Amino acid sequence: MDLNSDVGESFGNWTFGDDAAVIRSVSSVNVACGFHAGDPTGIRSTCAAAAAAGVTVGAHPGYRDLAGFGRRFLDVAPTELVDDLIYQIGALQALARAAGTGVSYVKPHGALYNTIAHHQGHARAVVEAVRGVDETLPLLVLPHSEIERAARAAGLRTVAEAFADRAYTPAGTLVDRREAGAVLHDTGEVVEHVLRIATEGRIRAVDGSWVDIAAESICVHGDTPGAVRMAAAVHGALTGAGVTIAGFA
Amino acid sequence: MDLNSDVGESFGNWTFGDDAAVIRSVSSVNVACGFHAGDPTGIRSTCAAAAAAGVTVGAHPGYRDLAGFGRRFLDVAPTELVDDLIYQIGALQALARAAGTGVSYVKPHGALYNTIAHHQGHARAVVEAVRGVDETLPLLVLPHSEIERAARAAGLRTVAEAFADRAYTPAGTLVDRREAGAVLHDTGEVVEHVLRIATEGRIRAVDGSWVDIAAESICVHGDTPGAVRMAAAVHGALTGAGVTIAGFA
Amino acid sequence: MDLNSDVGESFGNWTFGDDAAVIRSVSSVNVACGFHAGDPTGIRSTCAAAAAAGVTVGAHPGYRDLAGFGRRFLDVAPTELVDDLIYQIGALQALARAAGTGVSYVKPHGALYNTIAHHQGHARAVVEAVRGVDETLPLLVLPHSEIERAARAAGLRTVAEAFADRAYTPAGTLVDRREAGAVLHDTGEVVEHVLRIATEGRIRAVDGSWVDIAAESICVHGDTPGAVRMAAAVHGALTGAGVTIAGFA
Amino acid sequence: MDLNSDVGESFGNWTFGDDAAVIRSVSSVNVACGFHAGDPTGIRSTCAAAAAAGVTVGAHPGYRDLAGFGRRFLDVAPTELVDDLIYQIGALQALARAAGTGVSYVKPHGALYNTIAHHQGHARAVVEAVRGVDETLPLLVLPHSEIERAARAAGLRTVAEAFADRAYTPAGTLVDRREAGAVLHDTGEVVEHVLRIATEGRIRAVDGSWVDIAAESICVHGDTPGAVRMAAAVHGALTGAGVTIAGFA
Repeated sequence: MDLNSDVGESFGNWTFGDDAAVIRSVSSVNVACGFHAGDPTGIRSTCAAAAAAGVTVGAHPGYRDLAGFGRRFLDVAPTELVDDLIYQIGALQALARAAGTGVSYVKPHGALYNTIAHHQGHARAVVEAVRGVDETLPLLVLPHSEIERAARAAGLRTVAEAFADRAYTPAGTLVDRREAGAVLHDTGEVVEHVLRIATEGRIRAVDGSWVDIAAESICVHGDTPGAVRMAAAVHGALTGAGVTIAGFA
Repeated sequence: MDLNSDVGESFGNWTFGDDAAVIRSVSSVNVACGFHAGDPTGIRSTCAAAAAAGVTVGAHPGYRDLAGFGRRFLDVAPTELVDDLIYQIGALQALARAAGTGVSYVKPHGALYNTIAHHQGHARAVVEAVRGVDETLPLLVLPHSEIERAARAAGLRTVAEAFADRAYTPAGTLVDRREAGAVLHDTGEVVEHVLRIATEGRIRAVDGSWVDIAAESICVHGDTPGAVRMAAAVHGALTGAGVTIAGFA
Repeated sequence: MDLNSDVGESFGNWTFGDDAAVIRSVSSVNVACGFHAGDPTGIRSTCAAAAAAGVTVGAHPGYRDLAGFGRRFLDVAPTELVDDLIYQIGALQALARAAGTGVSYVKPHGALYNTIAHHQGHARAVVEAVRGVDETLPLLVLPHSEIERAARAAGLRTVAEAFADRAYTPAGTLVDRREAGAVLHDTGEVVEHVLRIATEGRIRAVDGSWVDIAAESICVHGDTPGAVRMAAAVHGALTGAGVTIAGFA
Repeated sequence: MDLNSDVGESFGNWTFGDDAAVIRSVSSVNVACGFHAGDPTGIRSTCAAAAAAGVTVGAHPGYRDLAGFGRRFLDVAPTELVDDLIYQIGALQALARAAGTGVSYVKPHGALYNTIAHHQGHARAVVEAVRGVDETLPLLVLPHSEIERAARAAGLRTVAEAFADRAYTPAGTLVDRREAGAVLHDTGEVVEHVLRIATEGRIRAVDGSWVDIAAESICVHGDTPGAVRMAAAVHGALTGAGVTIAGFA
């Protein structure tokens, strides 16, 4: 099972998250590419840390919106979005190479990630961008989404991911963040959740029923001290249960 | 002889220069990389136009300063400048590949170009960036400059350039822009100047004496209608004199 | 009747439109505030030119999106949009004062203008921002829009505007830009259109029927040489018909 | 005696410093204006917190350099710097008013602060900007600097500041940061230092001699938990010694 997390999201004098700690707990890191977060020196040093730890580097491009951290939908023309993404992935490729590693997959960030779950134009733009850079790069996706369909239709490899701290509906989709109980805050609950996904491929949905979750990667967070501790707990629990944690790429 | 010119310097809704016309008159284009000018879609379409015309693409990275068009010195730490440049060159590489071409050389832009003529820290940062991306990439440089020395010392190939519309001192350096007569505005004078450089390797300095100018490339401009016409005149005169205009890379 | 036009939309080394010419043909200028376009020096010199010509200055704030020229919807939180707008209007106020004039009204730009015609959250944010700066500032609005309703409900003065070069439906709304004939390109037609609005308060809709258009201001463009000539023609025709062209503020 | 500190330097999703704690320990806050740090919503909420605490708000404008946090010299033309500063101060004025307070002084930030200690062009630009906004606004300055001379020559009020955690030479200037002992890290030493300045107008220089320090304001930091504790200790010591801490403006 792969564990992935967002890193490289500091910018200039502003730090964000504890990349060093996160890298110790995961097998893949989604590295910011400069449009929503990430400055070149921070990106490169994060890549170097990942390389030193044997952790896989993926590109984590987003909308061009530093002030909003890429968390706001931007109605960019799909043809321009393609090029914005190629630009970001290419920039990361060069810094990753200079740091002794490379870019092994792509996972869109924030509002872009959420948008391509349903927005055909932006989903296709992501697919076209990946193909424009390197059609062998896998895309980390939300299962049953528009981006998953678009990527498969174009012949890209998709890697389904689950979320360590999110509750699921009986249909296997995420409970809406605006609903109570959508986000799991208890480490024990999160560990139980992740162990079920990794070892049984199923979890308890919010209504108590079992639901199948087929995931090749599980997303954990590292933007708060609590999140970092939870990521470490997830790593420890999986390893303790005999699950090998390794990148999918 | 190579003719080079800056292109790709539009940004979003703002256009700059007439790239299509410039591409018809030169053999190498220095493409903006997004930090001083250039948005991803404009960069890519410029690369595609260069590819279609058989014109060589070079990277034209600058200081991170859109508001100043990269024409203002920025006292960035050399270690950060290295990464800023790798980021820009990598971004261009990906867009150039998507456009069916590649990046064949590097020419720093504006204030960075001027600074590395004498600033050891920034000159070495440029050298380290090129080596970090691809140590076979030639650097287009001002002859007798700090960047030329630093690049050669590091084993990079340097390509000396001359300026079509600049007057030279008897020592072979550029007349300071603040002095009268530093910039040539008469097309006949520019053409004469360029023909001497290309066919004799020497020109008349401001004092009337002959001075040797060893250049593998001549820089022309394309940011005004007059500049575009002058570039075309230079191209025509060189071709008419039997000089083959071709990229150095 | 007031004639208004967008100005101050250059940025750094990039010029946009012919502000000097536009200022000669209108009574009110909507000055960019830096988030979608406009750098401080350009903003100030445009304000100075408006002041010298006796033309009223209005604030033309937009979404924070230089790369998209404020023409792309950005899903910013309304509470943050309020502050983004206050920031922009305040910045313009200071530059306008330094240029010997002041800010007399607000007209949102581009995608923000279009969005607040129907988006309650962003419309209310615009209203709250104007009230936060100066509740006596009038808002230039599209008639029969969400922003008009929200502004009136909050006690702000609204100024309805018509568009010199847009066709209208029999219901008095703008013909959708995606439909044929939505934009008038013929100067004679535009002049006829504007004269009817100014002198009769009605125009021929696309189906040939008469429709009442109550407007205190008419928007003209200045971003191309053709647009500048059309603005001058509109100015000349109105003056020739005895209509006084004067700011509403 | 006034205590001043930098605040409002968060940006979007990135937080910086503990403004709430700083505001409890000082009488004046230098609020970022968006060019080196500070987004409109953060600026406004910081102003509101200052207003609620009865703390004076000053403008803290810098070079246009988010990636460098305004800590890198930028060779901007003085005429453009004037307008960059007016823009920033005006933006802050509007947000401060919306938050129930106002801008009572100006203190340039970072590299701009350091540059105007000796750079005549940028120093005069700061003076011209303040005069362009409001010639009654005092300027917080380093004593014996170019900006102090330029401001006084122009008739602006200057307020000399001392630094709580910096060592001084026998001449009364700051010990260069690159020298050992330039920055005081021990709270007891800092408190002793500040008490001497506030009650005797003199301190021990690095060589042990006494040097007169005439300061109306003392600068403390709040960007780390240690700095915040030190600021609180300084506040407590001054109050305990019977010194009234109050804004100068």
